[in-house]
Amino acid sequence: MNMFRVDRERLWSSLMEMGVFGATADGGCRRLTLTEEDKQARDLFCSWAKAANCRITVDRIGNIFARREGTDPQAAPIMIGSHLDTVPTGGKFDGVLGVVAGIEVLRRLDELSIRTRAPVEVVVWTNEEGSRFSPMTLGSSVFVGDYSLETALGRTDDAGVTVAEALARIGYAGNGAVGDREVSAYLELHVEQGPLLKEGGEQIGIVSGSFNARYFVATVKGEPGHVGPTPMDMRRDALVAASALTLEIDRIGRSRGRDGRSNAPHLSLYPNVRGVIPGEVRLSCDVRHSDRSEMLAMERELREACARVASERRVEISLDQYFAFGPIEFDSGMTALVRETAKALEFSHRDILTVASHDAIPMNTICPTALIFVPSETGISHNAAEYSTPEQCGDGADILLNMALRL
Amino acid sequence: MNMFRVDRERLWSSLMEMGVFGATADGGCRRLTLTEEDKQARDLFCSWAKAANCRITVDRIGNIFARREGTDPQAAPIMIGSHLDTVPTGGKFDGVLGVVAGIEVLRRLDELSIRTRAPVEVVVWTNEEGSRFSPMTLGSSVFVGDYSLETALGRTDDAGVTVAEALARIGYAGNGAVGDREVSAYLELHVEQGPLLKEGGEQIGIVSGSFNARYFVATVKGEPGHVGPTPMDMRRDALVAASALTLEIDRIGRSRGRDGRSNAPHLSLYPNVRGVIPGEVRLSCDVRHSDRSEMLAMERELREACARVASERRVEISLDQYFAFGPIEFDSGMTALVRETAKALEFSHRDILTVASHDAIPMNTICPTALIFVPSETGISHNAAEYSTPEQCGDGADILLNMALRL
Repeated sequence: MNMFRVDRERLWSSLMEMGVFGATADGGCRRLTLTEEDKQARDLFCSWAKAANCRITVDRIGNIFARREGTDPQAAPIMIGSHLDTVPTGGKFDGVLGVVAGIEVLRRLDELSIRTRAPVEVVVWTNEEGSRFSPMTLGSSVFVGDYSLETALGRTDDAGVTVAEALARIGYAGNGAVGDREVSAYLELHVEQGPLLKEGGEQIGIVSGSFNARYFVATVKGEPGHVGPTPMDMRRDALVAASALTLEIDRIGRSRGRDGRSNAPHLSLYPNVRGVIPGEVRLSCDVRHSDRSEMLAMERELREACARVASERRVEISLDQYFAFGPIEFDSGMTALVRETAKALEFSHRDILTVASHDAIPMNTICPTALIFVPSETGISHNAAEYSTPEQCGDGADILLNMALRL
Repeated sequence: MNMFRVDRERLWSSLMEMGVFGATADGGCRRLTLTEEDKQARDLFCSWAKAANCRITVDRIGNIFARREGTDPQAAPIMIGSHLDTVPTGGKFDGVLGVVAGIEVLRRLDELSIRTRAPVEVVVWTNEEGSRFSPMTLGSSVFVGDYSLETALGRTDDAGVTVAEALARIGYAGNGAVGDREVSAYLELHVEQGPLLKEGGEQIGIVSGSFNARYFVATVKGEPGHVGPTPMDMRRDALVAASALTLEIDRIGRSRGRDGRSNAPHLSLYPNVRGVIPGEVRLSCDVRHSDRSEMLAMERELREACARVASERRVEISLDQYFAFGPIEFDSGMTALVRETAKALEFSHRDILTVASHDAIPMNTICPTALIFVPSETGISHNAAEYSTPEQCGDGADILLNMALRL
């Protein structure tokens, strides 16, 4: 069988070129969705896609599609994609690799003068990270019909700016219908974001499924008062209670070893001034486990912790679920094809579960989907230090290229 | 000796009238300094002062002085004052009582056709609370020379607006020199903000001195990372560490019974998004005690807690002091005069220490100063539920009126 290879140097230099937008002093990227930096990254993507003779469309939620026609005008497209937005403390690889590798596939197909039967589309999804606008994977979720377009366009950032306004400001409020069309397959390449492939020495992670995760907001209601004259024994301090809860959440994850995760990464405090005992805290938190029954046990422990802390600290705590994912199983035909492709390319590989959400997760509900990981050298992401080597990135792009051809 | 009484009904109705500006649904007030609500409160004060035939001047930090001339044009004024700004969760009494009682003294002097020898000035100090602009007691501190005018005007709120800009916006950037003039005595009436007078059944608290307090910012540096794939054992979560520190701070105060206080009321978290393990937390905190050596011991325990938490949670914690007050002793001649006046009015009274800062604390450094408390019915302040009765407020104003006449 004929196996093809991407141009690793070009792939790497495009990755580095994209990393300029929102570059931070520590070598990372801060490119929040639908900001000026995101617009610059999107513009660069579009210029690359045009140079690769693609037709560009933007849908009403701002997802960008760069289409290379195939020989069969009736065939549904194969999509390759990921995202260009980052978290505030982001790096150069998370999301970007999947998009840039898609562009590299288009370039290589052109160089090889290959015409595929089905069209190939490279897609940039809007707001995967969910840092500026909640929820995450917004663009792909609207594409597959998980949220209505109106709901998504009305989401606001901390300053009250809606997604619709932000799209209009940067000129990416497209007029294409969102979704509502057939996709023959979806491929997403992503850096692992954890240490497993690096530790195991495998080149390719074949994502067979996902962790189970539930996300909550804990609202802690105490009583504001003067930080001075109010005696300690009269206090009902919402931040002290939220702190006790945060330690409990951390303990719940740690008690599961490497198969569990728990987080309390996002907090708002009222009134948050130096003269007033905290009256209210809203704490976003989540529990995750590879095993669904363990995740449910973690949720039970979380609820028990809320009740215990509320009683001990004389506050009220309510816990409201706002998001969940998993268990997800990726299409077995697709994982088999990734495995075959990796074997044919002589890349070592292992099956792996994703702990985080990705655009591939909503896409998996509407078409055969493959999510492919390459190792992280540092085992870390959402951090300036996230790093994969040119070879690791090239391995992943080789998989995409040959998968696209086989499909 | 002739003792005089204020008009308690008028005093109460003026208090309630002032409480309209920034009124909240729960019966409290949110009147942050130099906002539109603060302007409305200042305007009402000025209209009252004009109706009482006073001359109004505003100095360059926005302090307002309403002056009633005396018979001796050479005599330094007696000042009566407090503040009209509130914390975000404020009530109708904290600060406002001292200002409105000052106005009531002016009105009563007019009704009684009394001409004092020295002028009487009622003053509204800018930014006592320190909620919008740090530090607290800003206007009185510049007046006494603790901060330069330039430093104070350059302080910014969370949105980056300076004090100078905020003063100009509401039309209270006066042109009077700040301080640099003699004051013969300063009187401040305030609600207690704690439960001691109510518990003891005394009508008047004679503030003899203050608690000792030190204020710090603890900066906790961890490592941002993805909330999903990062294994729990690789994490250095700044919020988990800050939570452990918050519980330690709470414990340090509680271990001292009713003579100690400790707080961690103000926190900023970076990046504070749902997808990223917290990388950095800045936590404002303080320790206070009636006894200086105990306060210093609390500070030592706080520093030990920082070191212990940093080591246990694998983060860096630095602790920087940004403010302190105490021990303060109020002028003994003035406390004796409050005591005599209370006796003559047949008000029960006790000596008390202030746990919080007040404008009387900087003023005490430049002139004989008396700080007088009346009971809080609820033992709480910086809360919509703060409440003193018309009789309690009237008792305090009676003290002010007779003190002003004796001085």
